[in-house]
Amino acid sequence: MTHTVISSHKQEVIIGFDQPFCVIGERINPTGRKKLAAEMAAGDYSTVEADTLAQVAAGANMLDVNAGIPLADEPAILAESIKLVQSLVDVPLSIDSSIVEALEAGLAVYRGKALVNSVTGEEERLEVVLPLIKKYGAAVVAISNDETGISEDPDVRFEVAKKIVHRAADFGIPACDVVVDPLVMPIGALGQAGVAAFRLIRRLREELGVNTTCGASNISFGLPNRHALNAHFLAMAASNGMTSAIMNPLHEEEMTGIMAANVLNGVDTNCARWLRKFRAPPAAGSEEEARRGRRRRRG
Amino acid sequence: MTHTVISSHKQEVIIGFDQPFCVIGERINPTGRKKLAAEMAAGDYSTVEADTLAQVAAGANMLDVNAGIPLADEPAILAESIKLVQSLVDVPLSIDSSIVEALEAGLAVYRGKALVNSVTGEEERLEVVLPLIKKYGAAVVAISNDETGISEDPDVRFEVAKKIVHRAADFGIPACDVVVDPLVMPIGALGQAGVAAFRLIRRLREELGVNTTCGASNISFGLPNRHALNAHFLAMAASNGMTSAIMNPLHEEEMTGIMAANVLNGVDTNCARWLRKFRAPPAAGSEEEARRGRRRRRG
Repeated sequence: MTHTVISSHKQEVIIGFDQPFCVIGERINPTGRKKLAAEMAAGDYSTVEADTLAQVAAGANMLDVNAGIPLADEPAILAESIKLVQSLVDVPLSIDSSIVEALEAGLAVYRGKALVNSVTGEEERLEVVLPLIKKYGAAVVAISNDETGISEDPDVRFEVAKKIVHRAADFGIPACDVVVDPLVMPIGALGQAGVAAFRLIRRLREELGVNTTCGASNISFGLPNRHALNAHFLAMAASNGMTSAIMNPLHEEEMTGIMAANVLNGVDTNCARWLRKFRAPPAAGSEEEARRGRRRRRG
Repeated sequence: MTHTVISSHKQEVIIGFDQPFCVIGERINPTGRKKLAAEMAAGDYSTVEADTLAQVAAGANMLDVNAGIPLADEPAILAESIKLVQSLVDVPLSIDSSIVEALEAGLAVYRGKALVNSVTGEEERLEVVLPLIKKYGAAVVAISNDETGISEDPDVRFEVAKKIVHRAADFGIPACDVVVDPLVMPIGALGQAGVAAFRLIRRLREELGVNTTCGASNISFGLPNRHALNAHFLAMAASNGMTSAIMNPLHEEEMTGIMAANVLNGVDTNCARWLRKFRAPPAAGSEEEARRGRRRRRG
C-alpha cells in the first residue's frame, strides 16, 4: 500500500489508497488574482492570512502556497508566505512554483516534509528539481508531460509518469514520494478528457502504484454548472484511484463530492465524517435529545 | 460492444457502455406506498397515470412497472397498468414482479421488447423465468444471489451472475439480453458496500461483457443527505461501468449526477444535454441575445 507522508512541524498527512481523500487548498495563489498579487508584492499578507484560515476551517488537509507574481522577488515572497502560513495553521504545505530558486527558498524555511509542486518530465527540469527534492527529503508532484508537450493519449502520459518515477529513483527518491498529476483537460473542448483521466489514474494506481493529484476544476472550464461537474469528476476520479486534489475547499458542492466518495470508497470509517457534517441535531425536547442527554449524563 | 436493446411499439432504448446512462423510473410501484396500493387494487389508476407522465417529463428513459399488492389480483393489475402506461408514453418498460404469472400476463399485453425484472440465480426461478424470456424475446434483469443467499464477497456474486448468463445461453438468450443487478447494500451497515459494488460492476463489464443496473437508493439507507450520496454513487458506479439504474427521476440531485457522469464518460456528445439543461438563457437585450437573434434570422 503506497503511503505518501507529508508533514508540518506539528501534523502529518498520509496520502494513500486506504486513506480519506486529501484536499489540498489552492487559494493562496496570485495567478489570476490581481489584488492578491499587488498585495503580496507590496508585503501585505492579510489576504494570504484570511485564505489560510478559511481553507483550513473549510476542511483542507493541506495548503498549496504559490507566489508567482511577474517582476516580483518570488523566492523571498514565497518564503515569507510559507513562514506566515506555518505560524497560523498546523496543516502541511505544498510549495508551488515553476522557478527553482523559489522552490529552494521555500524548502529552506519550511518546517516538516513538504510536497513540492511540481516537476515535469522535461529532462532539464528533472535534473534541477529532483536533486532539490532529495536534498530536503521532500515529496514531489510529477506532471505527466515532457519536451514533446501534453499528449491526448493517456497511455503516452502514463509512460511520461513512469519515466519521472524512474528518474526520481535514480536520485534516491522512492516512488511513494512521487505524486503524479495526470493533467486534466477541459471536457468542453475534449470530449474524452474524463475517460482519458480515469484510465490514466487507474493505470498509475494499479501498474505504477503511485498516488495522484490534479487541478480538478480544469475539467469543467467553459461549461455551466461547474461545481456539479467538478464534484462528480472528483468522486469518479477517486473511484478510479485518485487520492488527492488541488482544489478550492470553500466550494461546498465539491467538498460534498469528496465526502461522499470517502463514504463510498469505505475510507470514512462508520461514515463518521458524513454523519458529523450532515446529521441534523436533535430538536430540543425531542425523544432523541432526551436520550442523548441521558447518555451524556451517564458517560 | 454490448448493446441491450429494449423497445416499446414506438421507441427503442439501447443500454450500452457507449450510450448515455439509462434511467429506469421506479415510481410505479405500490411497495411501501399504501395509498397507491389501495388505489390500484380498487381499479383507480390516476396515480399511475400521474407518475408515468411526471417521470418521463423528468427524463426517465424507461419506466419500471410493478403491481405487487398483497391479496390483490397482481397479474390482472400489472397487465392493466402496462396497457395504460403504453397508451400514455412511448418509452419502453421494465415489467417488475416476483410472481411468474404476473410477468407472463404483463408480457402478453406488452407491445415491444420488454425488460423483465427479475430473475435470481436460484435454480427453480431460472427454470420458470428464462423460458418466459425466450418465449417473448425479452431481456431480463439478473440478480446476483442464489439459494445460498446474498454473499458479501463481490467475487462470489460475480460467479452467480456468470451462472445466470450461462443458464440463459442454454435457453437461447444471448448475454446482451441479460442485465445484471450487482445488489447494492446499505453502506451505513456495510462500510465496504461501495467498493464491493464497484469491483463487481467492473468485473461484470470487463470479464462478462454485460450491462448492469441496480436499485441505487439502497446504498444510502439510514444515512442523512441521501440524495448527495446517491448522486455520487451513481456517477462512481457509471465510472466503473454501470449502464443503467432503477431510480427516482424526480430527484434533481441524482439526475444531475447521471448527467455529469454522461459528460465525464464522454457519452453526452459535445456536452449537448448538459448545455441544454444548465446554460442560462441570454438576458433580453444582451449582446448574446442579439447575436442569437441575428443567427436565427439568417436561418
